[in-house]
Amino acid sequence: MTTLLERPEDMLRDLRNQLGPQAVLIGNEVPARNCNDWSASLPQTPLAVIRPVDAAGVAAAIATCRKAGLPFVPQGGLTGLCRGAAPEPGWVAISLERMTGIEEIDRASATMTVKAGTPLETIQKAADEAGFFFPLDLGSRGSCAIGGNLSTNAGGNRVIRYGMTRELVLGLEVVLPDGTVITNLNKLMKNNAGYDLKHLFIGSEGTLGIITRVVLRLFPKPRSTMAALCALKDYAAVVALLDAARSGLGPLLSAFEVMWPDYWEMITARAGVKPPVAAGHGLYVLVEAQGTDESIDAPRFQAWLEGLMERGLLADAAVAQSLAQTQKFWAVRDICAEFGQVLGPHISYDIGLAVARMDEFVTRCKAALADGIKGCESVYYGHIGDGNLHLVSWVTGLPIERQPKDAMDAIIYGLVREMSGSVSAEHGIGTLKKQWLGHARSEAEIALMRTLKAALDPDHLLNPGKVI
Amino acid sequence: MTTLLERPEDMLRDLRNQLGPQAVLIGNEVPARNCNDWSASLPQTPLAVIRPVDAAGVAAAIATCRKAGLPFVPQGGLTGLCRGAAPEPGWVAISLERMTGIEEIDRASATMTVKAGTPLETIQKAADEAGFFFPLDLGSRGSCAIGGNLSTNAGGNRVIRYGMTRELVLGLEVVLPDGTVITNLNKLMKNNAGYDLKHLFIGSEGTLGIITRVVLRLFPKPRSTMAALCALKDYAAVVALLDAARSGLGPLLSAFEVMWPDYWEMITARAGVKPPVAAGHGLYVLVEAQGTDESIDAPRFQAWLEGLMERGLLADAAVAQSLAQTQKFWAVRDICAEFGQVLGPHISYDIGLAVARMDEFVTRCKAALADGIKGCESVYYGHIGDGNLHLVSWVTGLPIERQPKDAMDAIIYGLVREMSGSVSAEHGIGTLKKQWLGHARSEAEIALMRTLKAALDPDHLLNPGKVI
Repeated sequence: MTTLLERPEDMLRDLRNQLGPQAVLIGNEVPARNCNDWSASLPQTPLAVIRPVDAAGVAAAIATCRKAGLPFVPQGGLTGLCRGAAPEPGWVAISLERMTGIEEIDRASATMTVKAGTPLETIQKAADEAGFFFPLDLGSRGSCAIGGNLSTNAGGNRVIRYGMTRELVLGLEVVLPDGTVITNLNKLMKNNAGYDLKHLFIGSEGTLGIITRVVLRLFPKPRSTMAALCALKDYAAVVALLDAARSGLGPLLSAFEVMWPDYWEMITARAGVKPPVAAGHGLYVLVEAQGTDESIDAPRFQAWLEGLMERGLLADAAVAQSLAQTQKFWAVRDICAEFGQVLGPHISYDIGLAVARMDEFVTRCKAALADGIKGCESVYYGHIGDGNLHLVSWVTGLPIERQPKDAMDAIIYGLVREMSGSVSAEHGIGTLKKQWLGHARSEAEIALMRTLKAALDPDHLLNPGKVI
Repeated sequence: MTTLLERPEDMLRDLRNQLGPQAVLIGNEVPARNCNDWSASLPQTPLAVIRPVDAAGVAAAIATCRKAGLPFVPQGGLTGLCRGAAPEPGWVAISLERMTGIEEIDRASATMTVKAGTPLETIQKAADEAGFFFPLDLGSRGSCAIGGNLSTNAGGNRVIRYGMTRELVLGLEVVLPDGTVITNLNKLMKNNAGYDLKHLFIGSEGTLGIITRVVLRLFPKPRSTMAALCALKDYAAVVALLDAARSGLGPLLSAFEVMWPDYWEMITARAGVKPPVAAGHGLYVLVEAQGTDESIDAPRFQAWLEGLMERGLLADAAVAQSLAQTQKFWAVRDICAEFGQVLGPHISYDIGLAVARMDEFVTRCKAALADGIKGCESVYYGHIGDGNLHLVSWVTGLPIERQPKDAMDAIIYGLVREMSGSVSAEHGIGTLKKQWLGHARSEAEIALMRTLKAALDPDHLLNPGKVI
């Protein structure tokens, strides 16, 4: 019996006897991978890592942590950028890394039931092999776990067509901070029997419960992909193009990625990417559509673009003639993943803004950064159709630890507040953006978040101090 | 000052002085419309009806109710079927009927901001006039209010393409049970700054807060509509047709309505609907697709159907050659709204089931009702692609109050529990389905719902006793 033991380490060893030697790693046994996320903050070593294989094991882990009075943090692929899954010294990490695998594909319901530690790429491939498409896609697809995608409500490139992760989830199993297992592996699009509890856990960054299994929606596999790189004279033309894409391509529209000229010039000058259209324009847009029949969809896409050229909406445009060319177009947009090599040390931002005000933000933010911080440069790009803007800022020559992040934060998030935007469009809050949450949410909203947290986790042992 | 007044009626009169004579109706002034929903239960007259024109007015109404210790229930169009918005004697109804109107259409964000009392049909028309499409559609469109659509997470015919009401909402303003106004009129698809609080209020049937304003997503207007009525030999063929529709029509698929043969025979024999295909088949399916270009989409739809005929999947099929014909096809499905005249007194059910198990349910349920209740007949139809089955059961010759509803409930919801379905796919729980909630949700889930209710409404004054 563990009730007579007193030291947390002894309680953890007792749990190891219960769950097996691979399930509990203590002190020096803690692997480096469990000490940090991808945010490039300093690693922090937890007291222990618990690696259960099912919800009952998570409940047992929680019971031990509660008995020992130890804070605990859920971990998936640890690819987060805001320290939502990062541990603190003295905490226990409950990692779902051994809880992987696809439990079922239900063809009639078009659903897949998976364990929460399963990497996104594994899910994408299993859907593909079963003749379906799972649309969520991020740069970290090979490393991130679906449970982490849920806990951060991950976005990515295809939100304009398929929605955020939240929209791709039908059911889940979650372990509450008190160890209660809630199993609702719902497969129904329509289910209004009582409160829809899953939305409480999706996007709350592991502060309200630990997701252990997920039922995902599957979609028909696209059978054609069309892409164009368009150059436009100004942002009004970009908004008109977005309107034309929505109405002309309808539900086939699958991406609408906008790049401001500084971004375009930097990638062509510094990164050596050969651009599909010439420089010198006001803005650049990558438009993608996915359909069901290449022979019909491709000519139609081409005709739609030609119509826009005739209307004078586009200054220039290149249409991909093959999948290889589509991938080349995407390379222009995806190069931002390699900014480290291109730019050197820099700070990345992920913000939300009303579509209509994006360009105003870019102009004002660029000027404010240049005026307020000596030598500060910045470039802008984003998933405009979803209201999501990314920006990267830096002072050339300074190492990362001397980049004026605090001053940049103050300027950028100050403008976000002024323009009623969001300080996090898709990366979450974690601890790194916590001080700026009040720039995007009212006091009443944050108070309600605290009420929910206190109702579910009155002892504040689950991932304390994250988000709110 | 009201603090010296003691009687609730006096406090309500004081509120009338504050909000105006149209805003507070007491005792005999209470209109009949505020005493019941569409569930055909007995009307109950509340002590008063408060009709504010904005969130501050709702907060003032709540303050008065709290001071007087009176339970209060939010009301929209009162078209609900489960008594979620129905008052009890001694309660106060807070009706949003004077809080109507469209505040803004943001073309670039493709959003519409509306007051919560606005009728759904007003929203549909405003979207249409602005060149957009708002896809939510229900039989009660002329009477139901958008706030009520949110509070019940309304479904309808186009869920397979556009999702439930929940998926159509980006932001909202809500007044909490303590009178706090939460304003988050978010227009961004991507916004992960803290917990997504709106999902707490959507689908909770007015038990956690009173929604006062809503930001809705708008969609491109469909420019072509294709429809076919298909006859198939058995349910396996229906599942194969659903798979073929998902992959062949892709995102254009906008409805997939299945009718079992008893339904088909009844509507043709008793309702006098002239069916587009002959009787005698195993099942009937109405397939609808909406596209962007009639000249391309219509021949493509026709070719897709011909391919299915050649494969032998369809026993028979009729393709609509005009919008008038499409409407005739829908009449076959929509006739269920007139069941009262066709069938006489009957009980309607709205349940959720995994697509793969629908036909098994229909066979077992029909037999169990006929075996268990003397003279009990039943017919079946539904939005199969969403996992939503409707059924209607009756004993011929009995008036509504003598229909054996309790016995039907026990058989139907017993089977739903056994087959892991939902006791409410789209109508909600209210009070009428409350005793069956445990057939669809676990004790742990219901306990968590109670935790949330207690956290937001510790005095249980907002719509008490509904849902849980």
